[in-house]
Amino acid sequence: MSSGESGVRYAAAPEAAACVFCAEDGGDVLWRDARLRVIAARGEPDYPGLCRVIWNAHVTEFSDLSAVDREHLMRAVVVVERALRATLNPNKINIASLGNMIAHQHWHIIPRFSDDAHFPRPVWAAAQREPCASRHTARVAAAAGVGAAVRDALQREFG
Amino acid sequence: MSSGESGVRYAAAPEAAACVFCAEDGGDVLWRDARLRVIAARGEPDYPGLCRVIWNAHVTEFSDLSAVDREHLMRAVVVVERALRATLNPNKINIASLGNMIAHQHWHIIPRFSDDAHFPRPVWAAAQREPCASRHTARVAAAAGVGAAVRDALQREFG
Repeated sequence: MSSGESGVRYAAAPEAAACVFCAEDGGDVLWRDARLRVIAARGEPDYPGLCRVIWNAHVTEFSDLSAVDREHLMRAVVVVERALRATLNPNKINIASLGNMIAHQHWHIIPRFSDDAHFPRPVWAAAQREPCASRHTARVAAAAGVGAAVRDALQREFG
Repeated sequence: MSSGESGVRYAAAPEAAACVFCAEDGGDVLWRDARLRVIAARGEPDYPGLCRVIWNAHVTEFSDLSAVDREHLMRAVVVVERALRATLNPNKINIASLGNMIAHQHWHIIPRFSDDAHFPRPVWAAAQREPCASRHTARVAAAAGVGAAVRDALQREFG
């Protein structure tokens, strides 16, 4: 069992024992509070700046969370989205909560560019092209600022 | 310009003139209020019950919406998710707001089954298998109840 700021107690689901997001942070932690953490993804070379908001407790579906917790989660998602937009100026932001492989509530916030590997298809679809190396390099450089931008923005939001 | 219940006025983006979600409902409308509509998708034979929540005004990013409007949108998303869970008992719900092709704020709520065409991959990835015909047929039949379930649940939520 774990207890969030909201006072809600979450029963650990049986699958939690084998859950990677219960065992590990799941990336470089940019922010953490009692209920959630925001991580910079590792192993996503095509998508510099890709962040994930991961609920700390092993909750599977968005609708398993209380209204108060859903609001807290979506506040984090929107703060991350804004920090990515300000830092990288992407053509589009993609937001997704899938969880088919890791059934532990988490949200992908993905900055997309019209010339990235998969655009305009989702990042999980077949690649459309080899991205332009110089533009990609510039984005990797800009994404070095994402961690501080996300941390600062979440600090301002949640204090 | 259009005006939502919240009193916020949205400037129509230049691209709105060519936007399919400005020109058309985008599916069979299950619910509509001043700010959003919920549609049953057409042309998704692999995913009976797939619903979309579409913002009525041409707003591109989630973070372009006010906090009040984001809350209204996510209340609709969670109500649809719960109605899909109750009607279809899926193994997982996938939620996504991508908008790379139609840059008009909309959310996919997709019931997933461990033996569906793409599981555990996202529905946009390469297919993993031909779904079992009899199970798929049973889901198509069950999905006939999604429209009423979504409508009733949104009516209870928003009155």
